[in-house]
Amino acid sequence: MRKLGVIGIGNVGVTVAYTIVSQGIADELVMIDANDKKVLAEKLDFEDAMPRMPYHTEIKIQDYADLKDADVVITAFGDIQASVRTGNRFAEFEINSKNAVEVGRKLKEAGFNGVLINISNPCDAITTILQQETGLPRNRVFGTGTFLDTARMQHVVGDYLHQDSRNIDGYVLGEHGNSQFNAWSTVRANNKLITEILSQAEIEALDSKPSEGAWTVASGKGYTSYAIATCGVRLAQAVMSNAKLFAPASVYVESLGTYIGYPAIIGADGVEEVVELKLNAKEEEQLARSVQYIKDHVAQLGKD
Amino acid sequence: MRKLGVIGIGNVGVTVAYTIVSQGIADELVMIDANDKKVLAEKLDFEDAMPRMPYHTEIKIQDYADLKDADVVITAFGDIQASVRTGNRFAEFEINSKNAVEVGRKLKEAGFNGVLINISNPCDAITTILQQETGLPRNRVFGTGTFLDTARMQHVVGDYLHQDSRNIDGYVLGEHGNSQFNAWSTVRANNKLITEILSQAEIEALDSKPSEGAWTVASGKGYTSYAIATCGVRLAQAVMSNAKLFAPASVYVESLGTYIGYPAIIGADGVEEVVELKLNAKEEEQLARSVQYIKDHVAQLGKD
Amino acid sequence: MRKLGVIGIGNVGVTVAYTIVSQGIADELVMIDANDKKVLAEKLDFEDAMPRMPYHTEIKIQDYADLKDADVVITAFGDIQASVRTGNRFAEFEINSKNAVEVGRKLKEAGFNGVLINISNPCDAITTILQQETGLPRNRVFGTGTFLDTARMQHVVGDYLHQDSRNIDGYVLGEHGNSQFNAWSTVRANNKLITEILSQAEIEALDSKPSEGAWTVASGKGYTSYAIATCGVRLAQAVMSNAKLFAPASVYVESLGTYIGYPAIIGADGVEEVVELKLNAKEEEQLARSVQYIKDHVAQLGKD
Amino acid sequence: MRKLGVIGIGNVGVTVAYTIVSQGIADELVMIDANDKKVLAEKLDFEDAMPRMPYHTEIKIQDYADLKDADVVITAFGDIQASVRTGNRFAEFEINSKNAVEVGRKLKEAGFNGVLINISNPCDAITTILQQETGLPRNRVFGTGTFLDTARMQHVVGDYLHQDSRNIDGYVLGEHGNSQFNAWSTVRANNKLITEILSQAEIEALDSKPSEGAWTVASGKGYTSYAIATCGVRLAQAVMSNAKLFAPASVYVESLGTYIGYPAIIGADGVEEVVELKLNAKEEEQLARSVQYIKDHVAQLGKD
Repeated sequence: MRKLGVIGIGNVGVTVAYTIVSQGIADELVMIDANDKKVLAEKLDFEDAMPRMPYHTEIKIQDYADLKDADVVITAFGDIQASVRTGNRFAEFEINSKNAVEVGRKLKEAGFNGVLINISNPCDAITTILQQETGLPRNRVFGTGTFLDTARMQHVVGDYLHQDSRNIDGYVLGEHGNSQFNAWSTVRANNKLITEILSQAEIEALDSKPSEGAWTVASGKGYTSYAIATCGVRLAQAVMSNAKLFAPASVYVESLGTYIGYPAIIGADGVEEVVELKLNAKEEEQLARSVQYIKDHVAQLGKD
Repeated sequence: MRKLGVIGIGNVGVTVAYTIVSQGIADELVMIDANDKKVLAEKLDFEDAMPRMPYHTEIKIQDYADLKDADVVITAFGDIQASVRTGNRFAEFEINSKNAVEVGRKLKEAGFNGVLINISNPCDAITTILQQETGLPRNRVFGTGTFLDTARMQHVVGDYLHQDSRNIDGYVLGEHGNSQFNAWSTVRANNKLITEILSQAEIEALDSKPSEGAWTVASGKGYTSYAIATCGVRLAQAVMSNAKLFAPASVYVESLGTYIGYPAIIGADGVEEVVELKLNAKEEEQLARSVQYIKDHVAQLGKD
Repeated sequence: MRKLGVIGIGNVGVTVAYTIVSQGIADELVMIDANDKKVLAEKLDFEDAMPRMPYHTEIKIQDYADLKDADVVITAFGDIQASVRTGNRFAEFEINSKNAVEVGRKLKEAGFNGVLINISNPCDAITTILQQETGLPRNRVFGTGTFLDTARMQHVVGDYLHQDSRNIDGYVLGEHGNSQFNAWSTVRANNKLITEILSQAEIEALDSKPSEGAWTVASGKGYTSYAIATCGVRLAQAVMSNAKLFAPASVYVESLGTYIGYPAIIGADGVEEVVELKLNAKEEEQLARSVQYIKDHVAQLGKD
Repeated sequence: MRKLGVIGIGNVGVTVAYTIVSQGIADELVMIDANDKKVLAEKLDFEDAMPRMPYHTEIKIQDYADLKDADVVITAFGDIQASVRTGNRFAEFEINSKNAVEVGRKLKEAGFNGVLINISNPCDAITTILQQETGLPRNRVFGTGTFLDTARMQHVVGDYLHQDSRNIDGYVLGEHGNSQFNAWSTVRANNKLITEILSQAEIEALDSKPSEGAWTVASGKGYTSYAIATCGVRLAQAVMSNAKLFAPASVYVESLGTYIGYPAIIGADGVEEVVELKLNAKEEEQLARSVQYIKDHVAQLGKD
């Protein structure tokens, strides 16, 4: 039977949980959050919904011990308002690195040995900490990373071509953050390279649209939730069904020495293979810059 | 093809929308809200999610004219914080009655002649105004009413009996508010009357639990969303698929002269039949009191 | 992760399997059939479909050892044509009782200790043999029994009242066969006893319709498949999600000393509780007759 | 509301219908077949299943007039056994061309002006006849064509690479029949050209596998059903939700002067765009041969 945990029941975590409950994706769901009242409220709200749903899900809360035999745990803790509130732009980063240490240790204590999928930001750095603290093998800990940014790129390119975003193939690589980049040499629409369909000027005009879109969402509603939660759930499904899904995610790339947004095969064992891409010179440079950014970031976290 | 509108994209409305998009329930979704940035943000967040979903939904925003040929419109406007903010306990009621007049007129102008399902509170009173302002026949306008409260009662009784809430049958009737009541004479578990399974003391102890649960949710997360949104979507599905679903909802009961939570058959034509129940003397009295409460409420609205 | 086995990949078993694969109900599906080519063909047909489905399911075939850690096994072996072909009306019964012994022994050898749900006919008798041969506790082996016949009764009554069959509550009890009966004293539509809604003459006229409908299906297409497969899958889902579903099924009723179609609570542990019903005198007599029929049947099987 | 018709309720047509009913894809389903008893049996079997399903679908049978306002009609008539029975390898082709004329005329008489998706074989030729007889614009009539064969190729290549078939991109083009071909120059796995991942010898070894797989299915179970039905339903969903899905199908390619398996954009208006591919010289030759084959085929049909 399928057992899933979600740690951090904020706007993203609760959407992950609702997606699971409303689509019958797990048989047992464990929710954990710093706020006891909030997590109880969400549990009851789901249970009030259940007589009107076709699926039954057992919902448990606030006990790490329940995660011992979970197939997948999704971490979505964080405090998107921290930076605003404190006037310190590294505020969420500081808070989450501490959260990650605590969550990682508690998962270890609970004896969790499933697959851990991290959503919390900064995604690549927090995934790194979670892997270290849980002591799980690197393949069994990964982050949503640029799986979300890639979806945004597909959305933008699809819209521009008046097509379904699912017709667009290719990747956003690197840090899930400012140093990420659209690897245009990998992007295809309808089986044709985007560089053969669009002019250089058109591609340049599209280049910043995905992150602008993300900003429009975040500023318009105060956070982003549906796309990132959907991405997290899809990766969890790939693990639970051993789907061998090819997708970009924040995975540990041996040759780069860091967790970073890069394509991989996702299955029951987590990251079952990292798939080396042929990038062009500019993209290799962008990737190297992003690698350095994450390493600096993680190093800094160590010093906090 | 299925076309659905949601008016009011707050916590409830956006959950209605996400449920529709994530489960492929409609082919076209029109979202309308007072806050342009918020509704655009939600649209983009859904579209960013779509490459990771199995369904395609066309999403349009902010144009009432798009609702002309909608099959169903769900209204979920409101301001749950209004009372708190203004220190006036009738604040949401005042605001929503004005909203209802405006929304109803705009739907009429747009030429909407599908089925309107209202979630906005006070549900029975707002449904009344929406019916009057849209000029739609009474059967084509109804509210979620005690469909939600009934789910909560099923949840509470199911938990008490260590059973799935779907095994519990029966109704909460009356106003979706303080004057509602559990019609225990209609409640069965496993085909047996609850009054034969539980002692009078046990039933009395359970009586206040559903509304206490609602309060635990509202106070724990600041609002309730998943159960009410699920209820709204299920009723919309019953209309779109002409399901002839037997369910309590806020329907116009001719013999009582008001919209009120009462069982009915829901199909393509909205409320296709109101199903008279045999209640006991106490329940009849509770129902009469609730009828009076709603009528007073509506009368007062007329004077604002 | 969810693992399910289906033994017997005829018209019913393959529909069970397709329902599971097309709705993402299991992560791993094991199919076993006497006909190697047929089961391989079905596996490949499902896998050819998978690129067009949203879910991934691992499909394994023909190895009982793969069932060792299955959560649920559904048995759907049989040969509906046997009677026709041999001119012997007990032909399927003879064949299936031998099949049941063999399947039960192989499941035991494989170390299967999940929940076994039997569809094969005669359902109550074959369920009895499977429980004996697997050595599994009685609660972990049950049959679809009158869960299907009850659906047919709901369909017939719903149609007669121009309503959704889901609005109809109540049970068909007894043998999944000729001695079954509609327990009209348990049947309700819209929360009212059917005996109060319809005249005695109307009920009598409806009484034979469910089995006539089954006959119309069987004679029109040569077998029945969709309703029975759907029933089997729903029971499997109730087990996997520990749903505590209240449903009639072929369960072992201690007080009657036999497997028979009777209401029970279905959860992770299989039949978690048999729910005693209050029947009227006529129904008690019908039940006793059906009990005797099954016992005679099983006794006869022992002698073959 | 979504309304769908299926004409021809054999093994494929009934699987199309079950997929629709079991997944709530349409609100109204019209089934038509030459065999009155068979189609009634399938209707009743679906309706017996409905109390155990989460969705409601209205099912109508045998009346072309009901198709007047259908969004999509899927044709799946045929007689796969005809060749075997008559000893004439063109038997199904002769029968189906007559069926196609009759079905096309009846759809025209009914005033059907939705989108017609043909599954019946020979797919490209029958689609041609259906377009002519219905008088619908060419974009509103298309066939499943090589959408199925492409899935089989994805399955074969995915298996070879130990990956999900959904990771494989690219097309099988041409006739849905012996003259079809894998356009290897369009095939990618994990964003890399298959010609760069596999050796020429490996590709040659894989080349015949998809059609061999189809043969294994057809010979193992007597027909193929699940993959083709899934393909038909996915195309219908793309039309109903205006998905702008990029997919190979049997579409009318102006430059080739025939219906043939070729990539196109599928939306509310049927085939909204045919997408020209860059093929290599060998593939262009294969395509030309396949074009000629279909034209000869259709010409011959005209003479019958």
